[in-house]
Amino acid sequence: MSQSSFGKRFVVTTWGESHGKAIGAVVDGCPAGLPLCEEDIQVFLDRRKPGQSRYTTARKEGDLVEILSGVFEGKTTGTPISLLIRNTDHRSRDYGNLARAYRPGHADYTFDQKYGFRDYRGGGRSSGRETAARVAAGAIALKILSQLDISFCTYTKSIGPVTAQAFHPEEISENAFYMPDGQAAEKASAFVETCMKAGDSAGGVVECRVSGVPAGLGDTVFGKLDASLAQAVMSIGAVKAVEIGDGTTAALSKGSEDNDGFVSENGSIHKTSNHAGGIMGGMSDGSEILLRAHIKPTPSVSLPQQTVTDSGENISLEIHGRHDPVIVPRAVVVVEAMTAITLTDALFCNMNARMDRVKEFYRK
Amino acid sequence: MSQSSFGKRFVVTTWGESHGKAIGAVVDGCPAGLPLCEEDIQVFLDRRKPGQSRYTTARKEGDLVEILSGVFEGKTTGTPISLLIRNTDHRSRDYGNLARAYRPGHADYTFDQKYGFRDYRGGGRSSGRETAARVAAGAIALKILSQLDISFCTYTKSIGPVTAQAFHPEEISENAFYMPDGQAAEKASAFVETCMKAGDSAGGVVECRVSGVPAGLGDTVFGKLDASLAQAVMSIGAVKAVEIGDGTTAALSKGSEDNDGFVSENGSIHKTSNHAGGIMGGMSDGSEILLRAHIKPTPSVSLPQQTVTDSGENISLEIHGRHDPVIVPRAVVVVEAMTAITLTDALFCNMNARMDRVKEFYRK
Amino acid sequence: MSQSSFGKRFVVTTWGESHGKAIGAVVDGCPAGLPLCEEDIQVFLDRRKPGQSRYTTARKEGDLVEILSGVFEGKTTGTPISLLIRNTDHRSRDYGNLARAYRPGHADYTFDQKYGFRDYRGGGRSSGRETAARVAAGAIALKILSQLDISFCTYTKSIGPVTAQAFHPEEISENAFYMPDGQAAEKASAFVETCMKAGDSAGGVVECRVSGVPAGLGDTVFGKLDASLAQAVMSIGAVKAVEIGDGTTAALSKGSEDNDGFVSENGSIHKTSNHAGGIMGGMSDGSEILLRAHIKPTPSVSLPQQTVTDSGENISLEIHGRHDPVIVPRAVVVVEAMTAITLTDALFCNMNARMDRVKEFYRK
Amino acid sequence: MSQSSFGKRFVVTTWGESHGKAIGAVVDGCPAGLPLCEEDIQVFLDRRKPGQSRYTTARKEGDLVEILSGVFEGKTTGTPISLLIRNTDHRSRDYGNLARAYRPGHADYTFDQKYGFRDYRGGGRSSGRETAARVAAGAIALKILSQLDISFCTYTKSIGPVTAQAFHPEEISENAFYMPDGQAAEKASAFVETCMKAGDSAGGVVECRVSGVPAGLGDTVFGKLDASLAQAVMSIGAVKAVEIGDGTTAALSKGSEDNDGFVSENGSIHKTSNHAGGIMGGMSDGSEILLRAHIKPTPSVSLPQQTVTDSGENISLEIHGRHDPVIVPRAVVVVEAMTAITLTDALFCNMNARMDRVKEFYRK
Repeated sequence: MSQSSFGKRFVVTTWGESHGKAIGAVVDGCPAGLPLCEEDIQVFLDRRKPGQSRYTTARKEGDLVEILSGVFEGKTTGTPISLLIRNTDHRSRDYGNLARAYRPGHADYTFDQKYGFRDYRGGGRSSGRETAARVAAGAIALKILSQLDISFCTYTKSIGPVTAQAFHPEEISENAFYMPDGQAAEKASAFVETCMKAGDSAGGVVECRVSGVPAGLGDTVFGKLDASLAQAVMSIGAVKAVEIGDGTTAALSKGSEDNDGFVSENGSIHKTSNHAGGIMGGMSDGSEILLRAHIKPTPSVSLPQQTVTDSGENISLEIHGRHDPVIVPRAVVVVEAMTAITLTDALFCNMNARMDRVKEFYRK
Repeated sequence: MSQSSFGKRFVVTTWGESHGKAIGAVVDGCPAGLPLCEEDIQVFLDRRKPGQSRYTTARKEGDLVEILSGVFEGKTTGTPISLLIRNTDHRSRDYGNLARAYRPGHADYTFDQKYGFRDYRGGGRSSGRETAARVAAGAIALKILSQLDISFCTYTKSIGPVTAQAFHPEEISENAFYMPDGQAAEKASAFVETCMKAGDSAGGVVECRVSGVPAGLGDTVFGKLDASLAQAVMSIGAVKAVEIGDGTTAALSKGSEDNDGFVSENGSIHKTSNHAGGIMGGMSDGSEILLRAHIKPTPSVSLPQQTVTDSGENISLEIHGRHDPVIVPRAVVVVEAMTAITLTDALFCNMNARMDRVKEFYRK
Repeated sequence: MSQSSFGKRFVVTTWGESHGKAIGAVVDGCPAGLPLCEEDIQVFLDRRKPGQSRYTTARKEGDLVEILSGVFEGKTTGTPISLLIRNTDHRSRDYGNLARAYRPGHADYTFDQKYGFRDYRGGGRSSGRETAARVAAGAIALKILSQLDISFCTYTKSIGPVTAQAFHPEEISENAFYMPDGQAAEKASAFVETCMKAGDSAGGVVECRVSGVPAGLGDTVFGKLDASLAQAVMSIGAVKAVEIGDGTTAALSKGSEDNDGFVSENGSIHKTSNHAGGIMGGMSDGSEILLRAHIKPTPSVSLPQQTVTDSGENISLEIHGRHDPVIVPRAVVVVEAMTAITLTDALFCNMNARMDRVKEFYRK
Repeated sequence: MSQSSFGKRFVVTTWGESHGKAIGAVVDGCPAGLPLCEEDIQVFLDRRKPGQSRYTTARKEGDLVEILSGVFEGKTTGTPISLLIRNTDHRSRDYGNLARAYRPGHADYTFDQKYGFRDYRGGGRSSGRETAARVAAGAIALKILSQLDISFCTYTKSIGPVTAQAFHPEEISENAFYMPDGQAAEKASAFVETCMKAGDSAGGVVECRVSGVPAGLGDTVFGKLDASLAQAVMSIGAVKAVEIGDGTTAALSKGSEDNDGFVSENGSIHKTSNHAGGIMGGMSDGSEILLRAHIKPTPSVSLPQQTVTDSGENISLEIHGRHDPVIVPRAVVVVEAMTAITLTDALFCNMNARMDRVKEFYRK
């Protein structure tokens, strides 16, 4: 399996670095016949785009996507869909003074240790910019899922110590933090302003809910749906913890509290609670899938930091320039994209689970 | 990729169910020339074995491992190592009365939804018993890693609300909970006793620390080392959350607090803190790798629970019989095994990262 | 992907060596609900078994298969099927005098070069015995395919210079060579007798025809159905060439001769010839799939051969003992098994090719 | 594994169709530090380019490659290399009259059966144009291999019935057919002229020899080096048979003839012949690797052919326009590219075969 690919039957490969000519993704395994145009993808890229509030970097990335293959007369062809996003605003001179220093919290040191060199112009392949390619690919997954009546609600659960207490989905798009609680968003705003004045940064939590997922997706052992989701979400740059359902709280509960009961009503079975977050034994149970990604604060801060250069000189580093004081709001759509890619793959992998369904599929 | 396999270059495939004839693993990609005997594996299986304290099930599983292939004259041959563990004590009659009910917190319902049938004798493939095969395979990974001076310390961090405050590694093996804090273990004991009397169960947290991991393991995007570890650990049955380093706490920190500085001393570079848990940008940074697995309480409780049968009848279910009131202590070695498998795979995948090392390897 | 696994959705992993305790296979991705018992598999193993004629080795391998997992109450469960075949007759002393020599035509030298040691007891992992595990796994694939009305006819096309001129399927099981032409089989018999008297050995060609394969299996580029079949068949020990349809003859033809025309009759489309062997552009076309495997002569011959020992001494080697003078008849069922495994995998991989079928599958 | 990817550690993904905006490849797993520029790739694309003789189509594809990522300051970075080739001359109107007909010998019918639609402008994803992306990726593999002193000699062995009798490598680039025998090339020229006058086409055979491959590459079972090469080469559009070493001739030989003896001279072991084509037991043996690809005649011929339209109408079809009367010469570099990609992957996969080498690599 390629190091830069994700998925078994719906396979997303991303490529490109922050200061190169372009970034992109190849989406392989998209079924033929899905209506798809660039605008379907652009709306998701626009959700991730910087410069939309004072809490995100002022760089204008543009992020215009071009579909190079795999679509014919407005429909997918079943063959790989190549997505291209040119890098337009990468002023590498901004990073000039950082060329030699290992920035704390970044991949500079580990990249150098692994590959024996540094792309001193910025994060290179390790830049958050790579996630634009994931969002573009995720938009295709989301289009597939929408045709199967699977829908998403993804938002910021908390910024630093400020947590959304209420859940008003309609408020998500009305504040710069994508929080479902306008009051919490105001407190978050105040908190981030404080961080910015101090030359510091903040982290937070993104929560993703998915409705309409059929029961039975995911495998029983290593390919558990929650295991795949954990990989998908933890593979997003700054994520340091992943929870499914009650997550860390489950470990504090008793069995009688954590178990979700079942009830049969009018011939259909549903659960009486959803502590499990919609996944039991690694397989979806038909209820809402719920996961949380814990995101560390932006590592680029203007406060002085102790570090070394690649020649081993001890220095004090201050990072100025355009950096998000908090990346959590922009990560919302990335978490949604990775969740969608994972679920799409699980949907396709599940199709040969039962012999009767295989026979039915091939009309025997 | 097989649904029951894990890894790219060090590939572990497990098979078998709780009430079948046997369970086992095939380990493919183990280098030739590693000294290996059954006793090397048995010691790890014994750490997982039930019946070692009053807090683990009284079933005597035996769990004797047999190496069927891949070892010749005491050394691995480079070809697949087949490990067999016969199921000896599976009295399926114990489960007879549960044959029709979907047990809350178990995979009964989702398994039936996916595959269209139920192995009514117990968890089948979804049983925790499957983890014995992982532990056997993990023992081989641990042997490989030990030859590279990579060592593990894995233990119970908390049981329900009781958290280890001290870290005395020598105490880990001296209490039934594998806690590095004897006093906390006593409190945990009291807590679990209370649960047992109430017919209830407890969860907890396992923590794993790995020393000696060279810098540069893991890939930059989907194959990030933390992403692979998250998949590996979340794929263990009852795990509901995975943290790397500071984990959920990182999301509450400011950038100036969370960043690990670097310092150069006597020609070698090290970090001044380890909030990152030894992984930056998805690659190991040479410091201690630290992760935590949050484990839900044992779902089998004797308190009455609301559920349905596979024919849709609403019933109240009480589960009696032999069940661990807390599985956390037995999960310690499973977390260690999955972490070791992941790191071994990352070690092998890293070998072609640099052209100069490839040329050196092939002596050109 | 494991080095010892084959397939993407129907994944076969084999393990074991000729003189170890056992060999076996793990079949992952078999749909739930397929009726399966050990006898279903045994009949195929018996077709491969040695000692059935004077042209195959007199060793009694027994080759009794045991199903260890993945089957419950006579049906597959959707989880991995572990197959075990104990090695019962491996008298390693027979090979004692060959312990140091690199046998010409065998993997002794290359195995030593790769892994740094030799299993001097025989071919080890490189022994033809490994194919018993493939046949066992292939029997499951064949059972799946039979439920979809896909059927096989596999036979020996030629032995050395003797080629079957007639095609009488009913004669295949009536001669020791599994040739569809009894007269050719008699000539083959005379030819092999000559080889045996001279202390020499023979090769030949196996042909496999598959009927009932639906159109559209296989991918357009690297995963072409013929490419997968070529890998599958070339991975059988002694195979040195693989042909699809007209194969090498196609290269001699003109386009007007090689192209298969189409005709529409009574609303259904079929081809007017089948030079392509049932695969066009890498996808099955609904007509009979036809492939040929060219198998080299058994490398173990009693004629003296020039070779070296593992310490570099030049010697003359004569290999006595029990060896098939021709392995082609025993390879027939191996080619069939690998073809069946490949087609089963292609069937499952094809299920998400079209969005309308995906929606239909999930009833949306 | 993606349907459009090839390889395990050196992974090539291609995308794009003949009449879309562009085609391209993503090469993942290329080690960091390899000097690489667009010109390194362009020279291989130019070998494949049409319009170089009267026996290849007059279309001017241009085939200018652009490196979009993975190279920094003239060296590879270890991250994915994205290669883009714009389609400049695709005049889709040429194909207008073929929009409804299933062209014999093409993938039109099977593509429609699989995906439920046709890209009526030409071969789409199934077009030979896709191989330009393989050649671009193969150029990177060839650069890697050249640094390890592994070199290639690939040429046309035969055109229709005309086979090269002599082997003069220096003549390969001196005739339009890339034959190592100028006299045979002249005969081939006369043969193809005859085909062209008759509105017909020819096939042929490509042979590839690789020197300097270290012993031990390839795995023992499904991942045999010859099996991977067979998949790689058979995945090229028009290839209908693949041979390794003596190939089909081996099946006619006796063991005493086909076996390659060993001899030890001055402390080094080599073979006394190379019937095996450099691969024994699936692993390279250190001698020259030799394979042959049998290529069918170009399916587009102007002679009338019987076929049907996608609505089931029986028609007689004549295909005019620009088509190679023989594609064999242009396939030479494609066979070389696929062979190089396969060997590069095998080189990287082999690095963890021995524990002593792993320890040495990590300096323990």
